[in-house]
Amino acid sequence: MFSSTSTIRPEGGAPLVLTLGDPAGIGPEILVHAYAREPVLMHGTFVAGDPEVLRQAAAVLPGASAHRLPVAVLDAATQAWQVPPGCVPVLPVVRLGKPPVWGRVSASAGRAAGECVAWAARAALRGEVSAVVTAPLNKAALSAAGPPWGAFPGHTELLQSEAAAHAGLDVAQCPVRMMLANEELRTVLVSIHVSLRDAIEAVEFSRVLQTIEITHRALSVALGRAPRIAVAGLNPHAGEDGLFGTEEREIIAPAVREAQARGLQAEGPFPPDTVFMRARSTSDRPGAYDVVIAMYHDQGLIPVKYLGVEQGVNVTLGLPFVRTSPDHGTAFDIAGQGIADPSSLLAAVRMARRLSGC
Amino acid sequence: MFSSTSTIRPEGGAPLVLTLGDPAGIGPEILVHAYAREPVLMHGTFVAGDPEVLRQAAAVLPGASAHRLPVAVLDAATQAWQVPPGCVPVLPVVRLGKPPVWGRVSASAGRAAGECVAWAARAALRGEVSAVVTAPLNKAALSAAGPPWGAFPGHTELLQSEAAAHAGLDVAQCPVRMMLANEELRTVLVSIHVSLRDAIEAVEFSRVLQTIEITHRALSVALGRAPRIAVAGLNPHAGEDGLFGTEEREIIAPAVREAQARGLQAEGPFPPDTVFMRARSTSDRPGAYDVVIAMYHDQGLIPVKYLGVEQGVNVTLGLPFVRTSPDHGTAFDIAGQGIADPSSLLAAVRMARRLSGC
Repeated sequence: MFSSTSTIRPEGGAPLVLTLGDPAGIGPEILVHAYAREPVLMHGTFVAGDPEVLRQAAAVLPGASAHRLPVAVLDAATQAWQVPPGCVPVLPVVRLGKPPVWGRVSASAGRAAGECVAWAARAALRGEVSAVVTAPLNKAALSAAGPPWGAFPGHTELLQSEAAAHAGLDVAQCPVRMMLANEELRTVLVSIHVSLRDAIEAVEFSRVLQTIEITHRALSVALGRAPRIAVAGLNPHAGEDGLFGTEEREIIAPAVREAQARGLQAEGPFPPDTVFMRARSTSDRPGAYDVVIAMYHDQGLIPVKYLGVEQGVNVTLGLPFVRTSPDHGTAFDIAGQGIADPSSLLAAVRMARRLSGC
Repeated sequence: MFSSTSTIRPEGGAPLVLTLGDPAGIGPEILVHAYAREPVLMHGTFVAGDPEVLRQAAAVLPGASAHRLPVAVLDAATQAWQVPPGCVPVLPVVRLGKPPVWGRVSASAGRAAGECVAWAARAALRGEVSAVVTAPLNKAALSAAGPPWGAFPGHTELLQSEAAAHAGLDVAQCPVRMMLANEELRTVLVSIHVSLRDAIEAVEFSRVLQTIEITHRALSVALGRAPRIAVAGLNPHAGEDGLFGTEEREIIAPAVREAQARGLQAEGPFPPDTVFMRARSTSDRPGAYDVVIAMYHDQGLIPVKYLGVEQGVNVTLGLPFVRTSPDHGTAFDIAGQGIADPSSLLAAVRMARRLSGC
């Protein structure tokens, strides 16, 4: 397992913000559940959301203590530290008017969810919050919400757009990458939500090199040293000397050599079927690498999820602020039942604190 | 973990044959080590090989007992049951003349390795042996050996060719598939040693359906009931309704429906990043499926290998006899040092016994 460095948490510094997520999904109830289960970890954080939605979520949680958890309405982010543990601090950045129907896609829920994310991104860009943890969005609801929300396939693109606007740049000039991490393994993806055919086309020299560089920068901060980066091949056996594909020889190996020339601790390309096993850290044995660069979505996500998804955390690398999220969706099928597990959200908070030092 | 049914082993039935593997690799020493470590499991098996090579291998093993393990030379396969535990029974189907040099690629070693495999396949096709467990080949040595050995990229193609010749059919009429299995997970691959680009092209209706059918037939024998088969998608999120690729809608889903129409318990296509986790069997929780059909090499091999490769077994499905092998190569870098681990070979013997009931 990765050694967890003790968290330096400057009381009174910029707090950490959590977004509401889609109000009709499990977001609100896992947020309340997180405050009930781990009040010390959650101290110095707040939700950007709608107090009424969180009160409704508190009412469905099992157990008297969670059920009665008070919602503390803030006037400003800085008040987060003053809220005693055992409350749910909320900055009311949206008001839904009427409460959402659990599990129902709606434009108003999508719009509210989007507005909370945009607010959190801007607060982070202004330096008012130290990190952003996002509860799950529903893509259909975001799409139903119309402009500008409908244009974003998900969180990553919305956050990237806010960061680019803040810097006065095009979105293309603000490249980001998705990292998936649990207690044993970290993996950063060269591409995410595209077909496998398109993912092969996305394996380009500049894109692979950029992924290595973004990973190096982000993990150098998190680890306090240069990360040891393993780069996976694209083809079986990493192409077996060109026998099963040439991308390793023509694209990936040159990108790794260029990263090395720039002083980065990158190695590869390695056979994909064993590189994740070699990088895996357990209590018995530290992994041979701190992170694996995966050439496509499932190459990286299959090993991260293989041992169970409860502790998986999604991290966006390359933004000018720390952003993490749980590794699951809105789970409309169980929303409002009080049975959703807040473990991945809590892991996302822990990871955000570690990455931002807050 | 998969429940291991007690082995019915008819004393005096057709024995199980192990092939020598490349004499310059770790094959001979892991064979001798297997007989030393698990004499009861190995009773009723024999090696098709060269007695002198096995004597040389016995001499490099650590520990006095293994070192002195006698090699018993057989005249016929049926004598395997008469050899007492604590010997290495060998049917001398090849004679190298001079001993191999550990870790050195040579035509004579490649030829000897190939001849042992061909002998074992023919013995299985004649019904003289109940199952074949192959020790690792070296592809370069096989290639150096010239015709006919050089034409075979590996074991699978050689065995398939023997089976086709025996049946008087073309190789194309004897389709086989590779299954990788450990104590927690079984996966059968639609394609193996081709580039990822070519693997996408190999995802065809008839090939996917054939993979499901071959898997159903082989595992029905092994489990004594119809296996529950999960079929993975090709693209992230199994294409997310065509958003990230159309192979699921156009090829994989129709193949699954056709398999269902033929009475098979196949389901899918499922998102690749979670289907292996769902099928994983642990001591706490049985898997939701008996086997996962993977659309390409690394999709299936990454999860099977993630927890360590020692117990991985390679099984060829579709042959008219049972064939298993350890999930590693000749390891020329450590051959002759007596440190190679026989665990995967022993797991391959256990699996072959389970699949053949011998």
